[in-house]
Amino acid sequence: MKQFAVIGLGRFGRSVAVTLSKMGYDVLAIDSNEEKVNDIIEHVTHAVQVDAMDEQALKALGIRNFDVVIVAIGQDVQSNILITVMLKEMGVKKVVSKAVTELHGKVLEKVGADKVVFPERDMGVRVAHALVSKNILDQINLSPDYSIIELIAPEEFTGKTLGEGALRGKHGVTVLAIRRGSEIIISPGAKHMIEKGDVLVVVGRNDKLKNLEER
Amino acid sequence: MKQFAVIGLGRFGRSVAVTLSKMGYDVLAIDSNEEKVNDIIEHVTHAVQVDAMDEQALKALGIRNFDVVIVAIGQDVQSNILITVMLKEMGVKKVVSKAVTELHGKVLEKVGADKVVFPERDMGVRVAHALVSKNILDQINLSPDYSIIELIAPEEFTGKTLGEGALRGKHGVTVLAIRRGSEIIISPGAKHMIEKGDVLVVVGRNDKLKNLEER
Amino acid sequence: MKQFAVIGLGRFGRSVAVTLSKMGYDVLAIDSNEEKVNDIIEHVTHAVQVDAMDEQALKALGIRNFDVVIVAIGQDVQSNILITVMLKEMGVKKVVSKAVTELHGKVLEKVGADKVVFPERDMGVRVAHALVSKNILDQINLSPDYSIIELIAPEEFTGKTLGEGALRGKHGVTVLAIRRGSEIIISPGAKHMIEKGDVLVVVGRNDKLKNLEER
Amino acid sequence: MKQFAVIGLGRFGRSVAVTLSKMGYDVLAIDSNEEKVNDIIEHVTHAVQVDAMDEQALKALGIRNFDVVIVAIGQDVQSNILITVMLKEMGVKKVVSKAVTELHGKVLEKVGADKVVFPERDMGVRVAHALVSKNILDQINLSPDYSIIELIAPEEFTGKTLGEGALRGKHGVTVLAIRRGSEIIISPGAKHMIEKGDVLVVVGRNDKLKNLEER
Amino acid sequence: MKQFAVIGLGRFGRSVAVTLSKMGYDVLAIDSNEEKVNDIIEHVTHAVQVDAMDEQALKALGIRNFDVVIVAIGQDVQSNILITVMLKEMGVKKVVSKAVTELHGKVLEKVGADKVVFPERDMGVRVAHALVSKNILDQINLSPDYSIIELIAPEEFTGKTLGEGALRGKHGVTVLAIRRGSEIIISPGAKHMIEKGDVLVVVGRNDKLKNLEER
Amino acid sequence: MKQFAVIGLGRFGRSVAVTLSKMGYDVLAIDSNEEKVNDIIEHVTHAVQVDAMDEQALKALGIRNFDVVIVAIGQDVQSNILITVMLKEMGVKKVVSKAVTELHGKVLEKVGADKVVFPERDMGVRVAHALVSKNILDQINLSPDYSIIELIAPEEFTGKTLGEGALRGKHGVTVLAIRRGSEIIISPGAKHMIEKGDVLVVVGRNDKLKNLEER
Amino acid sequence: MKQFAVIGLGRFGRSVAVTLSKMGYDVLAIDSNEEKVNDIIEHVTHAVQVDAMDEQALKALGIRNFDVVIVAIGQDVQSNILITVMLKEMGVKKVVSKAVTELHGKVLEKVGADKVVFPERDMGVRVAHALVSKNILDQINLSPDYSIIELIAPEEFTGKTLGEGALRGKHGVTVLAIRRGSEIIISPGAKHMIEKGDVLVVVGRNDKLKNLEER
Amino acid sequence: MKQFAVIGLGRFGRSVAVTLSKMGYDVLAIDSNEEKVNDIIEHVTHAVQVDAMDEQALKALGIRNFDVVIVAIGQDVQSNILITVMLKEMGVKKVVSKAVTELHGKVLEKVGADKVVFPERDMGVRVAHALVSKNILDQINLSPDYSIIELIAPEEFTGKTLGEGALRGKHGVTVLAIRRGSEIIISPGAKHMIEKGDVLVVVGRNDKLKNLEER
Repeated sequence: MKQFAVIGLGRFGRSVAVTLSKMGYDVLAIDSNEEKVNDIIEHVTHAVQVDAMDEQALKALGIRNFDVVIVAIGQDVQSNILITVMLKEMGVKKVVSKAVTELHGKVLEKVGADKVVFPERDMGVRVAHALVSKNILDQINLSPDYSIIELIAPEEFTGKTLGEGALRGKHGVTVLAIRRGSEIIISPGAKHMIEKGDVLVVVGRNDKLKNLEER
Repeated sequence: MKQFAVIGLGRFGRSVAVTLSKMGYDVLAIDSNEEKVNDIIEHVTHAVQVDAMDEQALKALGIRNFDVVIVAIGQDVQSNILITVMLKEMGVKKVVSKAVTELHGKVLEKVGADKVVFPERDMGVRVAHALVSKNILDQINLSPDYSIIELIAPEEFTGKTLGEGALRGKHGVTVLAIRRGSEIIISPGAKHMIEKGDVLVVVGRNDKLKNLEER
Repeated sequence: MKQFAVIGLGRFGRSVAVTLSKMGYDVLAIDSNEEKVNDIIEHVTHAVQVDAMDEQALKALGIRNFDVVIVAIGQDVQSNILITVMLKEMGVKKVVSKAVTELHGKVLEKVGADKVVFPERDMGVRVAHALVSKNILDQINLSPDYSIIELIAPEEFTGKTLGEGALRGKHGVTVLAIRRGSEIIISPGAKHMIEKGDVLVVVGRNDKLKNLEER
Repeated sequence: MKQFAVIGLGRFGRSVAVTLSKMGYDVLAIDSNEEKVNDIIEHVTHAVQVDAMDEQALKALGIRNFDVVIVAIGQDVQSNILITVMLKEMGVKKVVSKAVTELHGKVLEKVGADKVVFPERDMGVRVAHALVSKNILDQINLSPDYSIIELIAPEEFTGKTLGEGALRGKHGVTVLAIRRGSEIIISPGAKHMIEKGDVLVVVGRNDKLKNLEER
Repeated sequence: MKQFAVIGLGRFGRSVAVTLSKMGYDVLAIDSNEEKVNDIIEHVTHAVQVDAMDEQALKALGIRNFDVVIVAIGQDVQSNILITVMLKEMGVKKVVSKAVTELHGKVLEKVGADKVVFPERDMGVRVAHALVSKNILDQINLSPDYSIIELIAPEEFTGKTLGEGALRGKHGVTVLAIRRGSEIIISPGAKHMIEKGDVLVVVGRNDKLKNLEER
Repeated sequence: MKQFAVIGLGRFGRSVAVTLSKMGYDVLAIDSNEEKVNDIIEHVTHAVQVDAMDEQALKALGIRNFDVVIVAIGQDVQSNILITVMLKEMGVKKVVSKAVTELHGKVLEKVGADKVVFPERDMGVRVAHALVSKNILDQINLSPDYSIIELIAPEEFTGKTLGEGALRGKHGVTVLAIRRGSEIIISPGAKHMIEKGDVLVVVGRNDKLKNLEER
Repeated sequence: MKQFAVIGLGRFGRSVAVTLSKMGYDVLAIDSNEEKVNDIIEHVTHAVQVDAMDEQALKALGIRNFDVVIVAIGQDVQSNILITVMLKEMGVKKVVSKAVTELHGKVLEKVGADKVVFPERDMGVRVAHALVSKNILDQINLSPDYSIIELIAPEEFTGKTLGEGALRGKHGVTVLAIRRGSEIIISPGAKHMIEKGDVLVVVGRNDKLKNLEER
Repeated sequence: MKQFAVIGLGRFGRSVAVTLSKMGYDVLAIDSNEEKVNDIIEHVTHAVQVDAMDEQALKALGIRNFDVVIVAIGQDVQSNILITVMLKEMGVKKVVSKAVTELHGKVLEKVGADKVVFPERDMGVRVAHALVSKNILDQINLSPDYSIIELIAPEEFTGKTLGEGALRGKHGVTVLAIRRGSEIIISPGAKHMIEKGDVLVVVGRNDKLKNLEER
């Protein structure tokens, strides 16, 4: 079983730590702020109040034995960078660091971060896509041209079969799955009827999907 | 064509505004900070320096005629709430507000926000899921039990057909699509060969997917 | 016997708590500031130093069993709103919250406050009315047009009976009561003599009262 | 026509100034904060941005010719005291000053303030009284023992005449007036019928009134 | 033996307290700052760390039994005024308060300070007078026109008798005393010889003295 | 005519500058604070807003041509020291600097200040002496043992001649002068009558004077 | 002729820039603080007030054409790192950056700084060495074991020849050069006489040199 | 054995203290900041947390018995000066103080500092010299005209003897020593071969050395 440590328990770091813990992994949560440590202590394996800039303290926690360490510090760019370096120097195998700007991201890559994440930027992109349609729920960008989207079935398709809706023909997209309540129908056939409230998982070119989203 | 206004140009708000603009929509970006306005001015339709707490100024911008207004202010919870109320009082049809905590989210719903988003929390969940596997790239949570994941094909499946890999049989998951470079293969058959570097889009129960991810 | 809790012991909150206590009710006074708690501790049933943003702490105080909770926090609009929501979520029957501005008042109503008070605004109105006459002591606004005022008897009426003063006839107002030292005379007759230093309680239209006030 | 000047446009000062202006008096509103001056400028006769600690500036405004000057500054006790002295030294006839604490009030009296007001304390008292009954709307404290209260008619009295309700006999209080919608009935007789929704203005001893309030 | 209390141990207050103590009087020194209290503790009878705004604490010190209380607080005008009032309300017989400006001084007089001192202003006057002559050491201003000065004998007078120097005749001033080393000669006669290094105590009109000073 | 410059227009510096100007000398007043410069501009020959740490600016004012420069900066010990050095390096003949502590005073002497003054300490000493008697008004310390004091004539001496009062004999002090209203009587004889309200200027040993003061 | 740019004009940066300019090189000095730019403007080729975090502004200065850019920012570690990366991304050939700590130094190396300097640490080492002897003036550390030192000739050697002093034999060190006033004698022979005040440049093992230093 | 005390453990002070300690001397390190004291405690003889402005505390440490006290405080010029004076007053034989500016340096000399150092300025000079050549490693400035430099042998000289390289003849400089790995060759002869990677210690006129450096 993989072991994770999360340094910095702001909203992003806390969410990473709690989610990993819910998924059944061992998680060590670290912050210099006592209140933040207390707030998470019941949701993770271990939570300790430590200044992560203190190399000795990190070593004492056996940080180098963790499989992945996430540096989720955001406001303090300097600490974010220095701790990333320190962790790599100690021999941590995988360090994932949160970046604030593109330039910050470049520094993190150069100093050895194994993965750099931009949570606010990426979430902005997702929210923007979700907003352009009142129906779309989630999506995966397969390539610059193709995406998979999860959307509430537009009204004009309900009460029709997939074939009648001509999704593949006229709309040029493919329905990969349908969610109806708690039921999941995978690779539905052309004769499958779309009901009101169905959630469709659809793959296609972005321009085709955009037509669909705006209905 | 829908028109969007984004109030608050922090990293999340800026990302929302720029993404919407790239998708071809009209976007008005608003912040009280001159520097932030200048930084975005070439990437959106309009950008203005206005204190969004100033009701007269918002009205002068014709804010009520926008289809969607995103309140992306994060640090200042008070302004975030008051502006959300103000916009609904003015008659804005759809107000999307960023929440910091669950309690904050509840307030936003009660005061009339049409949609409440939690970018840092949600991104934390996503990053956590991505971290548990060295292969997984993205995912859609269909239900508490089912997900679609996009992952790099695990080594043990490469050089085999989908049927040989026994993904559906032994692993209980279905491959919905394969991305090979810029090519997208939708609903591939059982005889389809998986090559090294292929990206698989797979649907299945979470416990089955987890087995797959950890390879 | 009703039980009250007052959260926020600024000048307004303290005055509410002490007055309720003097009237014989049980009062729990809450503030995060130790000094403010110590200053009130001898004047109320209980006084505790608690950060009212800490939901667990509020629950531990059994706050949901109080008949009325007054949120008297003024400077920190965010806490004022969030605590109001929290109290209603916990099931407190009656929450009275202090508002700073009209917009703030609207938010409090939307999030479920049972009563919203504007102490500074209302006191400003009262003081303004009291100032326009050197005699007026207090008043009740019955309707936009009618008020009851308590005023020191203007000199031109002293030594005359109510009838001679022609208050009802010429001045169009009615004397409801007279206070003479510690004595209260209710519904005095037309032959009642007004003495120097008498305090009159008078009802009438505002324009008529204004004539009287300015003497 | 009396002329008023209000120094300090916080919530209390602003409310005093606007109310006096609505009553038809000339009002000069003064604050050192530009935003507060702009916010009131359409609601009073004149509004100027001046540091009231600057004696020359106050003189240039002809402050000594105003009938009443209200010193509504609250946070800055030092300025509040010094300006009160300065105004009396200049010969202003009536200076009304807002006090924060009892001790502050004593200082204001000693340095010559003609009237000292305690808005937050007094409003706390009023709100406390209003809270103990779900019916009471307003009140005048005639003496430590007697009050006039305005309350929504308790259910047990509706559909009965004043005599039947035995308010004077059994309850020992006198109904001075009844408000029914926009109508005002003064000194109603014993045969007058109380209807649902009537608002009663009642005078009596506090202990008797308290019995009435708690119904 | 008189008893003194000094509130506020800045440079002025400390100097007052230490001087009184050196003169053999009982002195209680009070400040809210621990370090200042520790610095004076060996130089006065008692020194306590107390917030002088805390009425109960002052009473507990028996402050009303002191013959003179000096309020030497300078920076915080508000506390300076409020403590002065508090002391007089408690019945302290003589309260001496330090004023910062003329207006502040007026307030202190009005609230009952028995004596108001302006140390910086008065010391500025003294230093200015001392600077206009290289010889003058100290002075007493008897009236707007007359002063006594202590000055090093100007060179042109040394080696001459007082009569030869014609101090009284030509210069219009009188030598009241001469200090020669540790010896004091009072009311020296006209034949008294002035030696180099003598210090003269001279009385006269200010214009006459000024002539003398500038030599 | 001597020319003075005063750097630092706090209460002490301002008082020095204004007093010198009233005495008829040319005074240049310097401060970096615009308000302080404006407040003194009508009371001195020149007043300029300059940062005295800016050597070029000081030179441009021709500071080296002034006879005396007073460094009256108090709060900022560093600037006080550095400016004192700078002035001596520029060749100013006499630099008078205000010291805050004994150690600070030592530094000023070592870096070349021609005179060091301690206004708060010295004023504290004076006020302390004045306080020990209800009569004493001012004093000059001639030596550790002898002083001249100015005091209101104690009651037991009024209505007696100087001889009868036995001031010289029994009390061992000498009356140098008497002030009666605006009149000054120098070296009064033994037969001179002391009247109520007379102010005596007396010289003597400190222990003798103390006896006198305490009457 | 090489061209240099110095970013950050604190004491270290300023000294680098001025020294390079005195040596005859073109120097561009950059700081965001106007005062610091003005103070150096007469001592370097160009000095501009620019926020070096502003990439466009740096490009507009043609920074990539400079041979060496020194990042002398010390307090703000974040800016120091980000600007170093930015300069390398722009293609500057040689970037020299000032480090505050060892860890900071490691980051600078990893992000591509061509040279990292630690001025305070290095100067501390030098000063420490200089302090251990009252004679030593400067030194070069050749290796952990060997140094060259410049020291004032110890008294016991003056008046003797190098041979008599037995520096090479008994002391195991070699005199490389002697400075006598402005004269430099290179590789002096054994017969060379050491005079009082001579400065010797000596090479040897550190332990041998230490014996020499402590004389 | 000499004993040293270092007051102020910033980067410079720390480096001085640690270096002296490594050289085998007794070092007492002093700072008011607990963290800085803890960081150095294992590297020096003693480290104590003391406010060096507290004269009694310094005396209790026996500071006057140390041979050299280094005042390494940099930011707080006032403390730096006052402590320097205090140490000399206590009788410390040698006080070395760090100066920030030339003017500050002058003050330190005047108040009695035995040696004044300017670490940032001096290090700036050194770094500037080192930058003009890609080869130079260190240097000693013998006089305004002569220096000793330590540089990596320029390529054109490698593979040649010293004589062939004509360093003395054509270049007018003398090679005093060669470092080859851990070997030191002192006063090498003209036939000595220069190898790639050799480090030369060379003496000569600055203009000659500059030619050499720029190769």
